[in-house]
Amino acid sequence: MWICELKPELGGLRDQIYTSFKEAYAAGRMKTGERLPSKRALAARLGVSAITVEGAYAQLISEGYVVARPKRGYFVADVFVGAPFVVGSALSSGLKGRYDQGKSDERVEIDLSSGMADPKTFPFATWARILRETITTRERELMTPSPSKGVAPLRAAIAEHLARFRGMSVDPEQIVVGAGSEYLYGLAFQLLGRDKRYALENPGYPKIGQVYGSLGAELSFVDSDSRGMRVVGLAESGANVAHLSPTNQYPTGAVMPISRRYELLAWASDAAERWIVEDDYDSEFRFSGRPIPTLQSVDALGKVVYMNTFSQSISSTIRIGYAVLPETLLDRFDERLSFYSNTVSTFEQHALAEFVRRGCFERLLNKRRLHYARVRTAIVENLKSSALADRCELFERDSGLHFLLKLHTSTPDAELARRMTDAKIRLTPVANFYRDPERAEPKTYLLRYSNLDPEKARIAFDRIARLL
Amino acid sequence: MWICELKPELGGLRDQIYTSFKEAYAAGRMKTGERLPSKRALAARLGVSAITVEGAYAQLISEGYVVARPKRGYFVADVFVGAPFVVGSALSSGLKGRYDQGKSDERVEIDLSSGMADPKTFPFATWARILRETITTRERELMTPSPSKGVAPLRAAIAEHLARFRGMSVDPEQIVVGAGSEYLYGLAFQLLGRDKRYALENPGYPKIGQVYGSLGAELSFVDSDSRGMRVVGLAESGANVAHLSPTNQYPTGAVMPISRRYELLAWASDAAERWIVEDDYDSEFRFSGRPIPTLQSVDALGKVVYMNTFSQSISSTIRIGYAVLPETLLDRFDERLSFYSNTVSTFEQHALAEFVRRGCFERLLNKRRLHYARVRTAIVENLKSSALADRCELFERDSGLHFLLKLHTSTPDAELARRMTDAKIRLTPVANFYRDPERAEPKTYLLRYSNLDPEKARIAFDRIARLL
Repeated sequence: MWICELKPELGGLRDQIYTSFKEAYAAGRMKTGERLPSKRALAARLGVSAITVEGAYAQLISEGYVVARPKRGYFVADVFVGAPFVVGSALSSGLKGRYDQGKSDERVEIDLSSGMADPKTFPFATWARILRETITTRERELMTPSPSKGVAPLRAAIAEHLARFRGMSVDPEQIVVGAGSEYLYGLAFQLLGRDKRYALENPGYPKIGQVYGSLGAELSFVDSDSRGMRVVGLAESGANVAHLSPTNQYPTGAVMPISRRYELLAWASDAAERWIVEDDYDSEFRFSGRPIPTLQSVDALGKVVYMNTFSQSISSTIRIGYAVLPETLLDRFDERLSFYSNTVSTFEQHALAEFVRRGCFERLLNKRRLHYARVRTAIVENLKSSALADRCELFERDSGLHFLLKLHTSTPDAELARRMTDAKIRLTPVANFYRDPERAEPKTYLLRYSNLDPEKARIAFDRIARLL
Repeated sequence: MWICELKPELGGLRDQIYTSFKEAYAAGRMKTGERLPSKRALAARLGVSAITVEGAYAQLISEGYVVARPKRGYFVADVFVGAPFVVGSALSSGLKGRYDQGKSDERVEIDLSSGMADPKTFPFATWARILRETITTRERELMTPSPSKGVAPLRAAIAEHLARFRGMSVDPEQIVVGAGSEYLYGLAFQLLGRDKRYALENPGYPKIGQVYGSLGAELSFVDSDSRGMRVVGLAESGANVAHLSPTNQYPTGAVMPISRRYELLAWASDAAERWIVEDDYDSEFRFSGRPIPTLQSVDALGKVVYMNTFSQSISSTIRIGYAVLPETLLDRFDERLSFYSNTVSTFEQHALAEFVRRGCFERLLNKRRLHYARVRTAIVENLKSSALADRCELFERDSGLHFLLKLHTSTPDAELARRMTDAKIRLTPVANFYRDPERAEPKTYLLRYSNLDPEKARIAFDRIARLL
């Protein structure tokens, strides 16, 4: 049984409730299926608003501790049963720069699947000012070669950001800066071992497999369900390394609940040379709740290499990502990979350090979240008032930068694709992200709005309606 | 027999003489051992100055077409006989940022083997101005993601530079920009094949083997002599790919003569999947003669991947290199590797494009060459007036940024190393660059002066003299 006690030292009221539940859960005081107090009852007892309790519950739901049963209340989730893969509830959610990034095609008039960040949201003036200041004030640092893992101020700024934004406790010594995620995948491959088998998510982001494949890794594609990569499938695959995005599976947007995270860590702990690469590429664009704890934060055995990139969150024209190594791999990195020169110029490393240190990065993320929320609302409105309104379904959750759009039509997929091309519309089928496309929901497309003008979207919706 | 005819359309007088000889050689009109006219006789006949003829001959000598025999004259070189490996004549010459770059050690007071470029020679003000202008005037380009191979203006500027500076005719489509040479070695490995055996030079630059090795390549180390990698050894190694620096072997400074270049190309042409990676890292720092034609320029069959880097020639803090692919590999690159995002930020790509386009890069190279020549002279003078003067020999050629210093002492190498460490002097033995250190000339060290203060060098020379 959970008796919620408020501990002001844990932060705001919502966080206190949230943490109190997690402690009770971790201590075994809340069992699967057990009912939580109703929002109203708990709010009354604690003397807080119902909205505060609702925020805490929403967070627990998004992390998989709790399920809401309509008209019945809140229950501790049955944590070891995977839910079936359901379009609508699980599919959709965050992605941004991923896939097809930067590809442009003159035969396309309206691109409904472009993952580029909206250049208008990039604080160019601020970035330019910091670049100028860096040139002017840091001559000596700019002429000093970077250590292999990156310059100290940037690694310190990243560590601080991870502490504030992701609740991660990381020593700057664990951080390796590199020229974008793809480069860092390659480093991970060299660090964790070329003789390993790498398990990737299916469906998933195709580039990850392309990078590992190009380097000669043996690959297994493990099915994801609504809770992320299936650990049973992972175990059966014989893989030693699992590369996945637990906070934001691509393209389904599935959030891996805490229970499966522990299952995954249990899998990794079963053998010495098992590792997890936690690709946290898009965690910045959740629209509500606070970000979900990373695998890295709950990894007691040093099995997790955490990765993220500024190319996604700032601008795809900036090629800087980073990995956080577990302490278990620090010596191995020094032995095997510290001969490498760092791949990012010292100039951009110092400028980015300032950008993060001064809070510009967090302000950019906040601004982007607001901007994208407005764009999302406008696009939904435009869809509802378009000719396509009663010929489709839109699936979305409260995080991320895409919808899934399911079209109601008897026209076969291939014919539909031909007609879209003729109409100069690009809309990517979700099937493209499956190793086995027949598993994908048919006639379902990725509608990405990070750089989509709602007015253009309306034109596209009307045009698509005429094609069905 | 060679009858030199001047053809003004071929350029300056020196170039006309040079080209006329090469045509006669290529046509078989000059045989091994045949004598060339004396400088004075040819100058008189052509009505040009003896200095002009001397310049043309020096170039032919440096490229290995011609040998000068003291008091006897100039002869066509015996092109297929490798000379023995001789310290003094062949050892020494160009290197700059290579190896140990950026490593600093507080236990070292005077570093005689640091390969860093002298920061004072970097035109920081110009670079800063171009960075500022790029920020101000290129907002749109900076927000547009780079194509996989790099932005068009940079690739065009590199192509033009290669045409002017190296006489290479390259289409910008052949150029791939990446975050430094080490990254590009990895791309070459993925492009040419993970199943290949890679032949590297012995002695050689250790990092090349570290990169290929870390990626899992099978390696062979092929002996170099005074003419560069021995093709007989290469053939025996069973390698499919030869990675070498024909214009400036490291650390010997050997320049591969044209005859051996043809041998090498002949080796590559003997099988479909044989390739050459021409690592031209330091060609900018020859002090006389014009740069030697690259393998890439004489590669008729599309077997050569040419590589160079601005991290060496501008500043090690700028991480930008490039590869020039032969046309035979363009489709393969598109198929296998164009999924990669470019690893250099668009900002630095555009800034570097301007730096090269405006001639700043060539001016920097010219300035550096003058600066290094002065430093070299001062260091030689200081050595001659130091207590070490009669306890050593200095070997150098007219190109490159290091000497070899051979110490005359009966103290064993290991004891010598211990004493140097105690005296806080760092001086790297050439043996460090050999797979089989016993092959190296004993008690011989790499004295690198690209970032060495002549006054500090004098102190070090006196200190070393007391250690012997």
